[in-house]
Order: sequence, then structure tokens, then C-alpha cells
Amino acid sequence: MSKVTVQAPANIAFIKYWGRSEHKLFLPLNNNISMTLSGCTTTTTAELIDGPSDMVEVKFLDKEFTQLTPDSIKARNIFDQITRIKMLAKSNKSVHIKSENNFPADAGIASSASGFAALTGVLLLVYGLHALYEDKKEFSRQVRLCGSGSAVRSVYGGFVEMLAGTDHESSYANQVADEHHWDLVDIVAIVNADKKKISSSEGHELAETSPLLAARIEHTKKQFPIVRDAIVNKDFQTLGEALELESTSMHAIMMTQNPPAFYWSPGSISIMNQIRELREQKSILAYSTFDAGANAHVICQKKDATAIEHLMQKNPFVKSTIYNEPAPGAHEVNTHLF
Amino acid sequence: MSKVTVQAPANIAFIKYWGRSEHKLFLPLNNNISMTLSGCTTTTTAELIDGPSDMVEVKFLDKEFTQLTPDSIKARNIFDQITRIKMLAKSNKSVHIKSENNFPADAGIASSASGFAALTGVLLLVYGLHALYEDKKEFSRQVRLCGSGSAVRSVYGGFVEMLAGTDHESSYANQVADEHHWDLVDIVAIVNADKKKISSSEGHELAETSPLLAARIEHTKKQFPIVRDAIVNKDFQTLGEALELESTSMHAIMMTQNPPAFYWSPGSISIMNQIRELREQKSILAYSTFDAGANAHVICQKKDATAIEHLMQKNPFVKSTIYNEPAPGAHEVNTHLF
Repeated sequence: MSKVTVQAPANIAFIKYWGRSEHKLFLPLNNNISMTLSGCTTTTTAELIDGPSDMVEVKFLDKEFTQLTPDSIKARNIFDQITRIKMLAKSNKSVHIKSENNFPADAGIASSASGFAALTGVLLLVYGLHALYEDKKEFSRQVRLCGSGSAVRSVYGGFVEMLAGTDHESSYANQVADEHHWDLVDIVAIVNADKKKISSSEGHELAETSPLLAARIEHTKKQFPIVRDAIVNKDFQTLGEALELESTSMHAIMMTQNPPAFYWSPGSISIMNQIRELREQKSILAYSTFDAGANAHVICQKKDATAIEHLMQKNPFVKSTIYNEPAPGAHEVNTHLF
Repeated sequence: MSKVTVQAPANIAFIKYWGRSEHKLFLPLNNNISMTLSGCTTTTTAELIDGPSDMVEVKFLDKEFTQLTPDSIKARNIFDQITRIKMLAKSNKSVHIKSENNFPADAGIASSASGFAALTGVLLLVYGLHALYEDKKEFSRQVRLCGSGSAVRSVYGGFVEMLAGTDHESSYANQVADEHHWDLVDIVAIVNADKKKISSSEGHELAETSPLLAARIEHTKKQFPIVRDAIVNKDFQTLGEALELESTSMHAIMMTQNPPAFYWSPGSISIMNQIRELREQKSILAYSTFDAGANAHVICQKKDATAIEHLMQKNPFVKSTIYNEPAPGAHEVNTHLF
């Protein structure tokens, strides 16, 4: 039997989504758009095995491989995806999966984005569903069924939109521009923060308890084409202003839902303020955005990246930084993990 | 000629207002409600003088008296109020005003609330408009014309609502319960923060640029009777949950307006998280709220106040604390400042 390995990048959303229109198909409430991240990738190897059960091992940069059991909530999504793809392939062969992240576990980088894109990729290939893997729209639909919305966008490289859609067929990802289109940089600034208390999955279901949700969705729908055009036209200031407002608007929903989800830490506020001051002083044009976590993604142009990374490393709240350029999407590689 | 002195408390809003329906009469977008603060008061003495011009001196706890000139924006509101009351009294006598705050200048306590209530009070008295001073509704309308919405509520003691109204006549303050009604405590935790960059006055005019404003106003109108009833019925948990959500909802507007107004500092987030954790651990029931500033107002029951104050003082972001119980409203005192 042969091994297959797929590498997939994480991504940072410029238009985010928080809340779903349909929870079983994981349809987001609004179109969203992101940049893939070269510095945050997952590599996953799969091999069909003889034996009664599947085996999944996961490793983060600074840790050992850990074997997952199907009883934890996070692992359950992984085992569910294995079961789904097996049914699709009409196979009852067991699989051995080994997955490695090149970023630390506590980085608060959405490991599910790169992880579920890589997982779905190797499963499609190892179970012989090559046509589904090659048809990237279909690949992205299969990723969506994992339950990780951001993972859908990691199928493609560069700048990727996810169309919310109204059913399984119409909800998929699409490449807006490839990884060579624009030399944007995302400096992830990792701050000291407790482990997040509300997972993204739980959070999506609570979004509708926020009195501000409907207003945000209406606004986000207006912002989506502005951000998409800014990417196509490489208009950094328009993109930056929109992505910063978008991040704040999503966190406004999170913080006003019931129970509230506060993902920002003191360090998050410190970086937001620092980045805004840099702009006010007309020193460097950079913008900050936050996913469902405390770590800042500072978006800048490549010419300013070294200066930004240096400034972030001097911020007393910052533990470390990760440098990211736009990256290729999920793709097969020849080096296997076992 | 005789001196008059009025003392007035600051207050903390449980339902706040951000944004106005009318900018000349300073009509707020929604009814709002607050508790007066015993630890944060302004005492103001006025005397009519011979001479061509008015004289205003202001002092904060830790500073010397400073003479104000009519050309600064903040001072202009004070001189405008003097001019208005003179016209009302059909007087052209000059006045000497001396005003002292028992809290530090950099405390970020809305000195305008206590300051404008005390100022309007002494002006009405010294210019002989006793009927307007005695009619507290009318007194509160006169305070509103200073342009400080929160000051309107400092006319009364205890728990005070401000009815938004639709014109000068219908927009005034009202006492919901006096200062002996309920032994709530507000521990103000003063955090290290830069001077705020967007004043409340500017901020109110920018509120309408937030895409979330209309949704917030609709929600706040629903919350107002809930908070009012919780005060009347002394239902601490209902009040607490509502006041915390209300604070976050107001800051959501501030942070999503254009340009955004970020009043929270790293210390603000630290206190919010700490107070939430105390509740989650079922240790102490307390709630945090923030006006247009970085300092936390931690609302608790008197039995827990010492413990809260102690915890706040141990928080590394907190510089100092101010203890407040519900206080009497603006009232005449016999001790003059000069």
C-alpha cells in the first residue's frame, strides 16, 4: 500500500465569518475572504492499513506526536471526516494518519484550517477519490463538511474567497488571486494568553444571541466586494481600513453574545493601539486583525515587514512572532511523515 | 455680595448613551440610567463681582487651582453656560467661579458630570434663578444645555434616569430611587492609560458612522426597563448582567465608528477578564462597566466591596482605586471655596 502526503497552509481572513445560516452543512452567514499563510502549515501523511481501527497521530512544532482518541470533541471531527470519506469511497479499509504542524500548539493559530484541509486532501487521495481532489471546488466542499469554515479557504493558494451559498452545492471556495499576486505580509504576534474558553464551533452557535449580529452581517455583505476589489487592485489602504473594522466588528459580536466570548487579552489591545499609533504618526502603514483568539495578525507590505516584526518583538506583551507571505494552497508533496 | 456653593457627584451609567438625536439641544438617542458616586464630587463656589469679565478657577485633587481662559474647547462650554444663565437672568454682572474636584485630574472620571451639575447649580443660585434651581426637572434641563449628558443625571441623588425626550421640554432627569435605597458599591479601578484621544463630545457626533449603531439603540431601548426594574427590585444579578453587556455594546459602537475610538487599555481588558473569572469561580458576584475611558467601574454589593477593592489593588495594571456608594445629588453647602 502506498502513502500520500498533503501540505496545506493556514489562512487569515480579511472578511471573517461568525455565525452560520445552517449548522449541519456548516454554511456561513456571509461570504468571506482570506490570505493563505506561508509560515503556518500542516503536513499530513495517510496510508491504508490492515486492522480494525483508524489511527491518528498529531504533532505541533514544540511537542511530541500524540495519538488521538475518538472521544475528545476536537478529535471527533477528525474521525467523523475519516468515516465520511470512507463512505464516499465505499471503503471499509482502516487508515493511519500522521499530521505535523510547523507552528506551536499554543500559538492560537487556527490549526484546524491547515489541519482539516490537509486531512481532507490525503483522505480523498488515499481512498482513490482523485476526481474530487482535482476539482478544487468539490475538494473545498468536502473540507467544509469537517465543520471548520476557515479550512475551506486553505484549498487554494494566495487570496481566496469562500462563497456562503445556500446549500451544499453553492457553498465553496474560489481563488481570487494566486500567491504571486501581491507581496503582502502577515506578522503573527503571539501574546501571553490563557487557552481560549469558547471554541469557534461553540461560538458560531452563540453568534445569534448578539443583539448586533444582523447589523454586522448586513455591513459585512457591503464590505466583501470592497475588500475583494482592494485585493484585485492591490489597494493596501482600502484593504487595511476594511480588514481592521471587520475584525473589530466580529469581536463586537463575540463580546455581546450570551454568554460573551472575550478573545482579546491585554496584549491584543496593546498591539491594536501600537499599530494605530504607527499610522497616526505616519510612520508605517499596517493594520491588525484578530481571529477567535488573542494573537494579532499584523498585515503590512513586504517593504515594512522587518520593521514591523522588530517593533512587535519589542512589545512587552509579545512572546514570539511568525512571518507569513501568501502561500500555495493544499498540495501533494513527496516527503512522507512515516 | 454673597457667595453660594454647590456640591455635585459624578455618576456611573448602567444604561449609557452614545450618540444624539439632536446636537444643539444635546438630546440623547436613548433613555439612560445611572448611580451617583459618593467618592467623586465637585464643589463649586460662585460670587458676583464688579468688573468686565468672568473668572473661572478649577482644581483637581492633586493639582493647584488653574485659571481657565475662554479659548480652550473644554473651557468654552463653561463660559457658554455662564453666558446662557446670565441671559436667562437678564443680568450683565460678572461672576467669579472656583471649582474643586475631590478626585485626581487623570482619573478619567467624567469630571464634566459633577462639574457641570455643580456649575449650573451655583449659577442659577447666584443669578437669583431660585425657582429653576428648586424645580429639579428644570435644573436638569439647564444642565443638559452645557453639552454634558451625564451631568444631567447628577442633579438627583441615588439612582437616576435621563429621559431622552424629543425636545427641550421632554428631555430631563428623574430620580428612580434615592441614595439610601440600595447599598451598591462602585470601585473605580484607575489603570495606566494615555490621555483619551477622542473626547466624548466628538465621539457622540461620530457614533452614527458605526454600522452597528441602529441595532445597539434598538437593543438599549429594550434593556432600559430591565435595568430600571432591577434597580427598583434590587435584583443584583439581572442588573449586573445587563450593565456589563451594555458597556460592551457601547464600546462596540465606539470601536466600529469612523475613525474608531478605542478607549480600552490593556488594563481594562485585564479587569474585565478578572471580574468574569471571579463570577465563573462563583467567588464574588461583581460586574464591570466602562464609560468613555480606560478605567473600570466594578459594581458590587457592599458586603463584597472590601474584597473587590483588595483584588483590584493587586491587579498589576491598577494604579489606585476610588470607593463609591450612592450619593446625594447636587445640593447647596455652607462652606465656600474662597
